[in-house]
Amino acid sequence: MTMLSLNRRKALSILGALPLISGIALRFDAALAQSAASAPLLPSWNDGATKQSILDFVAAITREGSPDFVPPAQRIATFDNDGTLWVEHPIYTQLVFALDRVKALAAQHPEWTDAQPFKAALEGDMSTLAASGQRELLALIMATHAGMSTRDFEKIVLDWIASARDPRWKRPYTELVYLPMVELLAFLRANAFKTFIVSGGGIEFMRPWTERIYGVSPDQVVGSSIKTKFEMRDGKPELLRLPEVDFIDDGPGKPVGINEHIGGRPIAAFGNSDGDLEMLQWATMANGRRFGLIVHHTDAEREYAYDRDTNFGRLDKALNAAASNKWTVVDMKKDWKRIFAFE
Amino acid sequence: MTMLSLNRRKALSILGALPLISGIALRFDAALAQSAASAPLLPSWNDGATKQSILDFVAAITREGSPDFVPPAQRIATFDNDGTLWVEHPIYTQLVFALDRVKALAAQHPEWTDAQPFKAALEGDMSTLAASGQRELLALIMATHAGMSTRDFEKIVLDWIASARDPRWKRPYTELVYLPMVELLAFLRANAFKTFIVSGGGIEFMRPWTERIYGVSPDQVVGSSIKTKFEMRDGKPELLRLPEVDFIDDGPGKPVGINEHIGGRPIAAFGNSDGDLEMLQWATMANGRRFGLIVHHTDAEREYAYDRDTNFGRLDKALNAAASNKWTVVDMKKDWKRIFAFE
Repeated sequence: MTMLSLNRRKALSILGALPLISGIALRFDAALAQSAASAPLLPSWNDGATKQSILDFVAAITREGSPDFVPPAQRIATFDNDGTLWVEHPIYTQLVFALDRVKALAAQHPEWTDAQPFKAALEGDMSTLAASGQRELLALIMATHAGMSTRDFEKIVLDWIASARDPRWKRPYTELVYLPMVELLAFLRANAFKTFIVSGGGIEFMRPWTERIYGVSPDQVVGSSIKTKFEMRDGKPELLRLPEVDFIDDGPGKPVGINEHIGGRPIAAFGNSDGDLEMLQWATMANGRRFGLIVHHTDAEREYAYDRDTNFGRLDKALNAAASNKWTVVDMKKDWKRIFAFE
Repeated sequence: MTMLSLNRRKALSILGALPLISGIALRFDAALAQSAASAPLLPSWNDGATKQSILDFVAAITREGSPDFVPPAQRIATFDNDGTLWVEHPIYTQLVFALDRVKALAAQHPEWTDAQPFKAALEGDMSTLAASGQRELLALIMATHAGMSTRDFEKIVLDWIASARDPRWKRPYTELVYLPMVELLAFLRANAFKTFIVSGGGIEFMRPWTERIYGVSPDQVVGSSIKTKFEMRDGKPELLRLPEVDFIDDGPGKPVGINEHIGGRPIAAFGNSDGDLEMLQWATMANGRRFGLIVHHTDAEREYAYDRDTNFGRLDKALNAAASNKWTVVDMKKDWKRIFAFE
């Protein structure tokens, strides 16, 4: 019923420009498709081989009777978040959140003024922070992400995401999402894909806002997690966030997280860094038509330019693998007409 | 767009009797709704307070403008599997599967003929098995559920579920699903609910067949799991199943699994044993209209009768809690007109 023929595909692409419809599968009635018949596909993408590779893939797997045809139930696409759907430079947004939380909680923790990494966080000493090991960063995450109920943490995230501003663009971080990728998410959903986020970031940090920003509901978000514990408190059930790592959804963890949360194997995967290498291998190195895409940050002027030499979103092995696996590599500067919706 | 008004609700209920549509959200066009307008709701349920409590709840939360109205994105319903959607007596089906696997693998494990619990499994010595501790049962599970790729395990499950027969009804286990509950799943989905399975059973044991049998896709199945590991083998990516427990989705683990997989909090939960107590508390003890339901096995003739004194699906604390929390208790004998589709 939702196996869209090629001529409908074009009609439906307008949905990328519509406000995201929350919660339930998008539905397209005849009238809407009719009125959208003349809208261009993926309007923020420049014409060329990159855009064409996306259109060709979707055309092939939705064409009934084609050897490449994939039934809707198997149309699973997975997207990294940091650097693939939104800006990750100069540092991951979730780390900005953690540093803001350290400042907010400092009065209750006088011991932090003398202990690293909290001292560096409080002083805004980014070079010390950048040189921190995993143990220090974990201490920072646990001190700011654990010790409250899931409900309280959701409120903390929502309050922060509504008020925090990125220093370069002076805008909420949720406006620093890539418009071409938001169009791509909607385009895939219009072709009966389920679109999942599979991120190294915290699952509970993303879920409160992914539906509003990306049209991705909480159950379609996979991420790193800390353990939680069920408890009755004053006769009311609560889930408490514990200072203990549950799962790291990065690198070889991404196929594991995909299997645990989604069950099915993606036929398309979208990333931008070495942390996405195994996810792209898992999605594309299998029978049938598959699609892998790497966002290469090449636009220092409109966004950032980085690949092999960065702490945040290093793209090295995965860039080499893209060539041998024939993954599409987005040259951000060349392939994206617009980067942000506010431009 | 899918907020069904009350008069459409009735029309859509016919879907419970239609073949289950796989993968994507059910869609109902005007013609279908028209032809279904005279079909009864939940036809395998007898009229009475139990059935009425379900209809009243769904009517209330789908009535736009009502104080009980719940938007579609928050219409999350969670269902236990063993004893709630299919038969769990005299022993859990997954344990039957494990015992069959022990027999199939015995030739490769001569040491099993002298070592418990394998010896008992091979000899069909159920009383020894029933007296086994958690350590023995885990050994049985790990020996039969780990040590292969996820792909190979899926094939093993599908082959077994296609060929195994229940000794009482001489039918595949997938036919021993409760027709009233399958109708209920479809009725909720027709009212824009997402329906999840949240089971103590193995997540990878259920996923290969839940879509065909219940209309629940793999990403909407939550269960117990063992750890997996990503590996490149001969240049091909594989997920290997390790003999190590990852997560036990039972009792207080159910709200934890719900939070990890679904994110949102259910507004309705369906179970049959003490292992479902915390899930029902989590779903119902919160603001807004909520619904909890317990399947009470009271029909020794058509199925089984058990509650406080059984090893498989003990219903004791949760039965007491049902009274104080005003959960609906299904009296199987009285409330279900038909139990199985084959009757």
